[in-house]
Amino acid sequence: MDERVREHAELLVDWSARIEAGDDVVVSVAEDAHELGVAVAEAVGERGANVTTLYGSDEIGRAYLKGAEARASADGDTDATPEFDSDPAVDRAIFEAADAYLRIGGGRNTTATADVASETRQAYARARKGVREARMDTDWVSTVHPTRSLAQQAGMAYEEYQAFVYDAVLRDWEALAEEMARMKAILDEGDEVRIVTERDDAPDTDVTMSIAGRTAVNSAASVAYDSHNLPSGEVFTAPYDTAGEAFFDVPMTIDATRVRNVHLVFEDGEVVEFAAETGEEALEAVLDTDPGARRLGELGIGMNRGIDRFTDSILFDEKMGDTVHMAVGRAYDACLPDGESGNDSAVHVDMISDVSERSRIEVDGEVVQRNGTFRWEDGFDG
Amino acid sequence: MDERVREHAELLVDWSARIEAGDDVVVSVAEDAHELGVAVAEAVGERGANVTTLYGSDEIGRAYLKGAEARASADGDTDATPEFDSDPAVDRAIFEAADAYLRIGGGRNTTATADVASETRQAYARARKGVREARMDTDWVSTVHPTRSLAQQAGMAYEEYQAFVYDAVLRDWEALAEEMARMKAILDEGDEVRIVTERDDAPDTDVTMSIAGRTAVNSAASVAYDSHNLPSGEVFTAPYDTAGEAFFDVPMTIDATRVRNVHLVFEDGEVVEFAAETGEEALEAVLDTDPGARRLGELGIGMNRGIDRFTDSILFDEKMGDTVHMAVGRAYDACLPDGESGNDSAVHVDMISDVSERSRIEVDGEVVQRNGTFRWEDGFDG
Repeated sequence: MDERVREHAELLVDWSARIEAGDDVVVSVAEDAHELGVAVAEAVGERGANVTTLYGSDEIGRAYLKGAEARASADGDTDATPEFDSDPAVDRAIFEAADAYLRIGGGRNTTATADVASETRQAYARARKGVREARMDTDWVSTVHPTRSLAQQAGMAYEEYQAFVYDAVLRDWEALAEEMARMKAILDEGDEVRIVTERDDAPDTDVTMSIAGRTAVNSAASVAYDSHNLPSGEVFTAPYDTAGEAFFDVPMTIDATRVRNVHLVFEDGEVVEFAAETGEEALEAVLDTDPGARRLGELGIGMNRGIDRFTDSILFDEKMGDTVHMAVGRAYDACLPDGESGNDSAVHVDMISDVSERSRIEVDGEVVQRNGTFRWEDGFDG
Repeated sequence: MDERVREHAELLVDWSARIEAGDDVVVSVAEDAHELGVAVAEAVGERGANVTTLYGSDEIGRAYLKGAEARASADGDTDATPEFDSDPAVDRAIFEAADAYLRIGGGRNTTATADVASETRQAYARARKGVREARMDTDWVSTVHPTRSLAQQAGMAYEEYQAFVYDAVLRDWEALAEEMARMKAILDEGDEVRIVTERDDAPDTDVTMSIAGRTAVNSAASVAYDSHNLPSGEVFTAPYDTAGEAFFDVPMTIDATRVRNVHLVFEDGEVVEFAAETGEEALEAVLDTDPGARRLGELGIGMNRGIDRFTDSILFDEKMGDTVHMAVGRAYDACLPDGESGNDSAVHVDMISDVSERSRIEVDGEVVQRNGTFRWEDGFDG
């Protein structure tokens, strides 16, 4: 076995999920993630924990939903949306009994569920709110095993993509957590963030938002940091009262539609104008979901410099060093004062800007990052 | 998708497991059984039931046990047997909540766990008695998807093996159940079975056993018949007071050892002499397990004529038409009067004889089958 797979498994089990003897661990293995699943099972056995392995197959998920669609349309209404039992007993029992949940992505086709009606998917998701909440109550961590399908989505050769994934994942997380703690401290103490980017061929970004009273998350790829992705490497908070305009030059995929070069104008915290070079309808559908979908739920600062390119995967793209991202929609509770609820929405869609050049991030008027260099780094000219 | 895969899935869901709307169904998919898993998920969705998919990977099972062995030997005792938590919460919760459990075998290597110490396997099995009992309390069915690994074990080409599996599985089970009901009625009413086979080059079989008070199972590949294998196609009961000698000409595998041409001599219900042309030590280890391992727990009559050859898989071999098998060890409760316990043992090892030629099966002195032809079939000369 590739030594990098073993290192990935040990990071996931020890650093990310903090597995200990006696823990009840549920591992979900995607279709082509077998090898990492094997390495994780060995590590879990070595820690003295218990393991249950789920098969996270998109093709099986699609087949089940297509079967439910066939049942719903059996009486002649071919567009009928299936009904699903709410929070089925087995899935609920699994996550209520589990201490940790390790989701290993890596299928054979990133568009495996393309022909399932979005109404069907939504009905299925709605019926499983309790299962989802029980899952989020575990020490859950999401990662991916590099597969050919993900390499293809990234537009990369397979071995090249493997190297990309391991550069992003196999980091000195303790050191990165310390560096991110500086950024978190600045955001926790600050009241207002301003992000400025000057461009030749597109609208400039010049946007301000309030972060007073909010707490930033040091997302260091470990449940000990309230961080549930491996890789991670971002510091994020929940802003409000956004004003100004922002341009997002990193392409993204919304509901299977490629969306490029999004431009948003904010007034009094809300998106009042929007445009996209491609995929504007998908963007519009997101913004029209509910009132909260027009407000920001997240501002994130990407700080993982092991990620050196965009691969059309939000797990990696939003953590890339020298990027910022803003999400319209739902805010994370971890950023809010106890008992207070932040921006609420059914959606949470991240949009990313490259800030490695002709850019700056200011907090309360002080420059924290300029052209991709932080103020605590060598050569920074505050 | 191969139409035979869909038919297999529908038989499994409808005939074997009797899945209905609202059922909570757990499906375990082996490494190379993906395609049948997809077809089963679609059928379960179409029936309006819920599905949870486990990954039944032998390689992941091995990795977990090897990890546990590494932990147990970490203090220097390299032969230490690992300790396992008894009945871990997640696995117990799954089977307590499930209505049905569909196990789809079909891995990549039938010897995937060959380097796990048998003490480790036994310790793991002992710790999971409650999980196993909860699983047996569901409507469980075990089947296999034809894989290259199973074809190799059978000594067959892949396409040839696929045809073999579907010939065995895709039968008219209703018709076979009716035919097997005749055999069951004869055994239920009978007091003594005698099996005789004359051979040129090996010991004859001439063995009698009592079946008075015992109930035969019409194993028609459906939970509605107390039958949990697909394919099935045997009628079995729990005999006692066996006397005489029996020769088993079908090769078998006991604990990874190939065993051929077993000869057993019974007195007063117990094996008093034994021999095997190869693998005699493995046979001896079985017989020495406990007192019950020297007594028969099962007599089975194979009646599935879709199975036309031996493939070194007990799921198929023991159901082959024109064979009989006897198992030393544990008896099945379904064959016993309510509240009575039959032969008890930690083992249950089936041994098979070809009875298609120069053989007869008698019940209370009347010939029921001669040279592979039943008394109710054309051309039978009672």
